[in-house]
Amino acid sequence: MNLDDLVFHPWTVQGPREVPTLIGGSGSHVFDADGRRYLDFSSQLVFTNLGHQHPRIVAAIKEQADRLCTLAPGLASDVRGEAARLIVEVAPEHLGHVLFTTGGTEAIEHAVRMARLYTGRPKVLAAYRSYHGSTSTSIHLTGDPRRWASDTGAAGAVHFFGPFLYRSAFGSRTPEEECERALAHLGQVILLEGPSTIAGLVLESVIGSSGVIVPPPGYLRGVRELCDRHGIVYIADEVMVGFCRTGAWFGVDHDGVAPDLLAFAKGVNSGYVPLGGVLVSDAIYDMFTKRPYPAGMTYSGHPLACAAAVGAITAMHEEDTAAAAARLGADVLGPALRKLAENHESVGDVRGIGGLWSLELVRDRQTKEPLVPAGASPADNAPMVAVAKACLKRGLLPLVQGNRVNVAPPLNVTDTDAAAGLAILDEALSVADAYLS
Amino acid sequence: MNLDDLVFHPWTVQGPREVPTLIGGSGSHVFDADGRRYLDFSSQLVFTNLGHQHPRIVAAIKEQADRLCTLAPGLASDVRGEAARLIVEVAPEHLGHVLFTTGGTEAIEHAVRMARLYTGRPKVLAAYRSYHGSTSTSIHLTGDPRRWASDTGAAGAVHFFGPFLYRSAFGSRTPEEECERALAHLGQVILLEGPSTIAGLVLESVIGSSGVIVPPPGYLRGVRELCDRHGIVYIADEVMVGFCRTGAWFGVDHDGVAPDLLAFAKGVNSGYVPLGGVLVSDAIYDMFTKRPYPAGMTYSGHPLACAAAVGAITAMHEEDTAAAAARLGADVLGPALRKLAENHESVGDVRGIGGLWSLELVRDRQTKEPLVPAGASPADNAPMVAVAKACLKRGLLPLVQGNRVNVAPPLNVTDTDAAAGLAILDEALSVADAYLS
Ligand SMILES: Cc1ncc(COP(=O)(O)O)c(C=O)c1O
Ligand SMILES: Cc1ncc(COP(=O)(O)O)c(C=O)c1O
Repeated sequence: MNLDDLVFHPWTVQGPREVPTLIGGSGSHVFDADGRRYLDFSSQLVFTNLGHQHPRIVAAIKEQADRLCTLAPGLASDVRGEAARLIVEVAPEHLGHVLFTTGGTEAIEHAVRMARLYTGRPKVLAAYRSYHGSTSTSIHLTGDPRRWASDTGAAGAVHFFGPFLYRSAFGSRTPEEECERALAHLGQVILLEGPSTIAGLVLESVIGSSGVIVPPPGYLRGVRELCDRHGIVYIADEVMVGFCRTGAWFGVDHDGVAPDLLAFAKGVNSGYVPLGGVLVSDAIYDMFTKRPYPAGMTYSGHPLACAAAVGAITAMHEEDTAAAAARLGADVLGPALRKLAENHESVGDVRGIGGLWSLELVRDRQTKEPLVPAGASPADNAPMVAVAKACLKRGLLPLVQGNRVNVAPPLNVTDTDAAAGLAILDEALSVADAYLS
Repeated sequence: MNLDDLVFHPWTVQGPREVPTLIGGSGSHVFDADGRRYLDFSSQLVFTNLGHQHPRIVAAIKEQADRLCTLAPGLASDVRGEAARLIVEVAPEHLGHVLFTTGGTEAIEHAVRMARLYTGRPKVLAAYRSYHGSTSTSIHLTGDPRRWASDTGAAGAVHFFGPFLYRSAFGSRTPEEECERALAHLGQVILLEGPSTIAGLVLESVIGSSGVIVPPPGYLRGVRELCDRHGIVYIADEVMVGFCRTGAWFGVDHDGVAPDLLAFAKGVNSGYVPLGGVLVSDAIYDMFTKRPYPAGMTYSGHPLACAAAVGAITAMHEEDTAAAAARLGADVLGPALRKLAENHESVGDVRGIGGLWSLELVRDRQTKEPLVPAGASPADNAPMVAVAKACLKRGLLPLVQGNRVNVAPPLNVTDTDAAAGLAILDEALSVADAYLS
């Protein structure tokens, strides 16, 4: 019997799976029991920012495992404090404290609770193209169709359109136009919903799994101004893009903006031990020096997870991961992917920044009709499945979502490995091209 | 600067804390940098069921850390499959698959989503005396006052009264009467809410942090029957009591009952790495072989967490932890705590099972007026704070909640350590007695 069949698998139909069983890894590679190696162009779910089995993180985990694996949040932990110090040190200004969670969705849940208690208002704004997690508040804030099956209309979520030039909701032709119109739209949504009803606005600093959409310069600054004007708590969702994925410590850094709350997870410790958290502004922290924060979780500030964060952040300083990711995007992935697009009719758009890129596949570059429809049935989805299989067969783990092939290798991927992966992608895209008439 | 001040702490007013900084542990003890040792009568938040630094779990974590720390849920992991096998093997019947999470609250969120999708109904029943977690659905289902600050009335939660003989909602005088009346009450709530509107019923098999309340024999069986009669999904919350805490693998085992979904966390790996999950009935699993399960989390089935579970469950078999916990309750804690109650006027009730006990402190045994009111202000709470301090000063970590001193040591605590802790409790209870007029 295959023991994987006893596992109930997220986001899929249950039953036996045709996926590799992986037992080891190193850097940008993972391998199975037969020694077959795969180059990881997904960083799993965009979280192994430092690749697999980074010696510094593994050592930090083993050292802490020998000392003290676990401790309740009510007792003080040296390594938890040290992780908080390292995180606050690289955070945008005025974010002086860290509430730890075990992943991204709880970070969003706690951030939203803080925003509601801080403002006394009920609603929260979020973008239609977004993913914020699977617990109730997070999935209601999620804008994309992953929300639908769980939507009871219950969480006071209001959705707006963010900037997305390739498929503009505003008929824009330039990034400047898109920025201006998207901000005007958001301003109108706020006015018509009623500023006094809106506790917070949650926004991925770069939209990740709903499209890899980089906001035009000035958009996040505009969001910050709108929030300031209306007393709305700005919650940056940096679960996917925080900790150097975009070539800066945080996505908001590109626009020189500090949110009121910043949710993180994934890259904070490359996912070696489940960890997430919320960076809390001094103003909001101050309110909770006067009344208790009324929530928690058993594994908040888990020592083993915090030790992994200390290891990962230390390594990111030592290796200047932010600069490495910026170079990866500007000198390696960006140019190569644009070249691929020229050679493959099926590629409608190339977008990205740092170590997070996407090729959007279309039937027709003029109409921009997606190669597979949103929420495609298994039959309709055949072209994307074929592309993914072509990658896997050649030893590449791809990250295929909807009609997109994302490219998100570890940020310390070597140029040689990056080139090897891009060459495989080149072959796999021919499979996509073949579906065009 | 104390780095603990950079951490935003759950469930409390923010600011510098007077709590020990712990850097190591061994078995039933933890210690600080100066070598001061504390005997842990709390199992932290009732999760270190096998104590601190159990060699088998530490070895399992380090071995996996050397192989492969992390892997996305979309790829198969040998150790994840092995953890699922070990969990299914000890689970009640017909619970053949495991969805892994990182803690208790996500387990409840996913279980409720499954119940709603399975039945197509909106509401969920939960007990007033209950705690189910801090994300939106879980906190709305939570019955006790911890819900209030987060309650937007939004989750379709309906609360009922469970059996609690010491403060019966039904005027009962015997466990049999309480069981019968509590079931009749629940039956009426179901009929009046409308069975066709109720997706699920979530119930701690022994109420944990809301009172340590053991249901009378037959109650869980009665709940199972009501759920069967009305097509309601029975969700057992075994986050605190699962994995031997009560002297059986699961709390439902005492009543010979199998729920449709069983949420677990904590004891599954003694909290060494954040892990939780849902055991899924074959009928519900079967439905999701026909349509996708529409949710997930990045760290579902995390290899390091699953390795710790394999280590912990293996140790529980080797050491027969279920039997050890049963003996601990029947031969050690139960008799000793009843004796303490005789000698301390402030103890109104002693209750518990296996390794989970509570002393409920009252001003007056006749009126049963709690020693401190529910949701006490810091001033009103002075007696309980004094009791907790008296324990800490003598080197005992207590678990004080409301007007209760809970007793929940690691299940492998030695008789000598148990006796030492009980002796300290004896002294600390004199502090409580002094507050009685
Ligand atoms: C932007 C964003 N927010 C939140 C989440 C939820 O995080 P988790 O899966 O750890 O709950 C994700 C997960 O991919 C994410 O990409
Ligand atoms: C019975 C019960 N359910 C759920 C939870 C929530 O678990 P977590 O704190 O891991 O989210 C707890 C936590 O104490 C619990 O005791």
